Amino acid sequence: MSDKEVAKKLVDLGKELESLIQKGREPKMTVPQRGRSNVSFDEEANLLRMGDKDSSRNFLNVAHTKKFMQTTLIASKCRDFVESGKTASIRELYYQMKHTIKGTKENTFEDQSESDPLIVDLETMLSVLREELHLKADDKGTLIGNIVIEDTGDVIDCSKLGRSGLSIPSIVEHYKFQEVDADYCLVIETGAMFDRLVEEKFPQKNNCIMVSTKGQAARGCRRLVNRLSREEKLPIIMFTDGDPWGYYIYSVVKAGSMALAHESERLGTPETQFVGMTMSDVEDFGLEKVTEQLKDVDKKRIRELLQYPWFQKKEWRRELKLMEQKGVRIEQQALASKSLEFVAKEYLPEKINSKQLLP
Amino acid sequence: MSDKEVAKKLVDLGKELESLIQKGREPKMTVPQRGRSNVSFDEEANLLRMGDKDSSRNFLNVAHTKKFMQTTLIASKCRDFVESGKTASIRELYYQMKHTIKGTKENTFEDQSESDPLIVDLETMLSVLREELHLKADDKGTLIGNIVIEDTGDVIDCSKLGRSGLSIPSIVEHYKFQEVDADYCLVIETGAMFDRLVEEKFPQKNNCIMVSTKGQAARGCRRLVNRLSREEKLPIIMFTDGDPWGYYIYSVVKAGSMALAHESERLGTPETQFVGMTMSDVEDFGLEKVTEQLKDVDKKRIRELLQYPWFQKKEWRRELKLMEQKGVRIEQQALASKSLEFVAKEYLPEKINSKQLLP
Repeated sequence: MSDKEVAKKLVDLGKELESLIQKGREPKMTVPQRGRSNVSFDEEANLLRMGDKDSSRNFLNVAHTKKFMQTTLIASKCRDFVESGKTASIRELYYQMKHTIKGTKENTFEDQSESDPLIVDLETMLSVLREELHLKADDKGTLIGNIVIEDTGDVIDCSKLGRSGLSIPSIVEHYKFQEVDADYCLVIETGAMFDRLVEEKFPQKNNCIMVSTKGQAARGCRRLVNRLSREEKLPIIMFTDGDPWGYYIYSVVKAGSMALAHESERLGTPETQFVGMTMSDVEDFGLEKVTEQLKDVDKKRIRELLQYPWFQKKEWRRELKLMEQKGVRIEQQALASKSLEFVAKEYLPEKINSKQLLP
Repeated sequence: MSDKEVAKKLVDLGKELESLIQKGREPKMTVPQRGRSNVSFDEEANLLRMGDKDSSRNFLNVAHTKKFMQTTLIASKCRDFVESGKTASIRELYYQMKHTIKGTKENTFEDQSESDPLIVDLETMLSVLREELHLKADDKGTLIGNIVIEDTGDVIDCSKLGRSGLSIPSIVEHYKFQEVDADYCLVIETGAMFDRLVEEKFPQKNNCIMVSTKGQAARGCRRLVNRLSREEKLPIIMFTDGDPWGYYIYSVVKAGSMALAHESERLGTPETQFVGMTMSDVEDFGLEKVTEQLKDVDKKRIRELLQYPWFQKKEWRRELKLMEQKGVRIEQQALASKSLEFVAKEYLPEKINSKQLLP
């Protein structure tokens, strides 16, 4: 959506409220419900989706009045950002709005925890994305490989960034993919495994580009993967630790997350496949000596994952059950017990070439 | 130190042990003590330094035997890494060494917490750095601005990386600075403030390069700053939140840390100066409304900082005392309460040009 269209949506919201006031009626807005009860898993698309339950936010309901004022304040600030071409962090937005209301001792906001959820309300109300409101989240992640990106006028060849790679910013909407010459994109959970594969020249030898998420993938990183899949038709293959946390990181890249179900189309990449670590790897590659015992918190997380509709595929139920049975988890870096090169020379090429991938 | 020299040191350690065994004497090694009692603050150099207290690690002392074996195992693995030109994460090193000793049920290592401190022992024993042993820590941080770096054969112009910037790797020893055209390097605590200044074209307008640490600075980031200061004589100016955590992050970049006191020369940059946020800023720029109340954990941390020898400069005692008195802290992003541009157009240029910097 263009800045102009987003600004129009924000202005229209204001006009609507104004017209209610002019007519002597109560100003109110309709906000989609964002609880778990309004999120469902679309099996066909393999995406989490928000349902269509709404609530009403009414200015004359004292329980709503402050939130109502705060929501309009956010809308007004975002209009400023969009029209001036500026982008603010959600923390800056909070500081920009925080002040004492003239003639009172009342502050507009006391804490950022008040403004953050209202941003999401505004996103869902207007069907615009946070990035389109010129707001940004924290950035994290690195990109390397045969891809040329135009970023704000600069042409960046990500195959010419040594061992460093490109920092993936929180917003990648402005990236223009000028050239992508790769067979697939490998998305890697840990920074250390990413470094290993850079050192082994894995992208050059396997004609792929690589992204490290450094833990749970940030929005910018998820959006980049989504765009590479949709726009460049690049197959996405993900490589995480063999534990419930790694599997969840995978599921968020693939199907989206509950908290951001309204953005799954943009942040989720249903075509993503999973290369490892799996529980079968432990046997197949003789890694029994370098597994770790599950802790209680791991076991609890496995049981939670087994409840999620998007973990009901038989391959994933099998993995999770096997993990529970064996009582162990395994890290990506445990492959180093074979040799430092093993992951790059045998494990990944073997599994990827023979398509031993989970859905 | 060259790979050859490091390999020789490792081999010499082995030869020394062998010669003791040949002579029928007990194999032992001398390990510098690394506790707080052996760390002191060198006021003149403004660096934390390790003292010269030693302990002996003796093979025939059953309390030492396992650690002795583990230390030699690490030395041997590091020799492999150095000689084969590979670099391993400390987690990979752990997995490479973990095995059951032939003919016993004893494992070499049970947990990485056993190998990590022994790596530091080896570093201090041999006066070599972790990076020289071809071991690496996690990476974090981004670099942008008028600096051209050669990294593994690629020439990277960091002023041509759009809004993204270069990911700072965990090891920057191999960086060759081909061209640095800047008046100073601004080191920024938060990723969001870094993004703000990128958006405001601060590096271009103020002829500086910028580094974001994203919290506590990683080793790679600290080493990069150190090299820019020593080799390029670039003034380093740091910009953190106005709270004890931000001030500590500053002190680590400047004077080094207690845990890594043996590497202060390489990781600390005593020439670093501090631009803000200070407690005086709150009054000077009318930011009273956007401060936050100190929590108990902040107050405790202030009292700890006041005890550290490297926080005894009068300017820093003043800041910390003032913070305690006012009972508030202030974030970098609170400057957005003025306007988004304020930090880039007024706050930083005003303070930097008039040299309102803390030592």
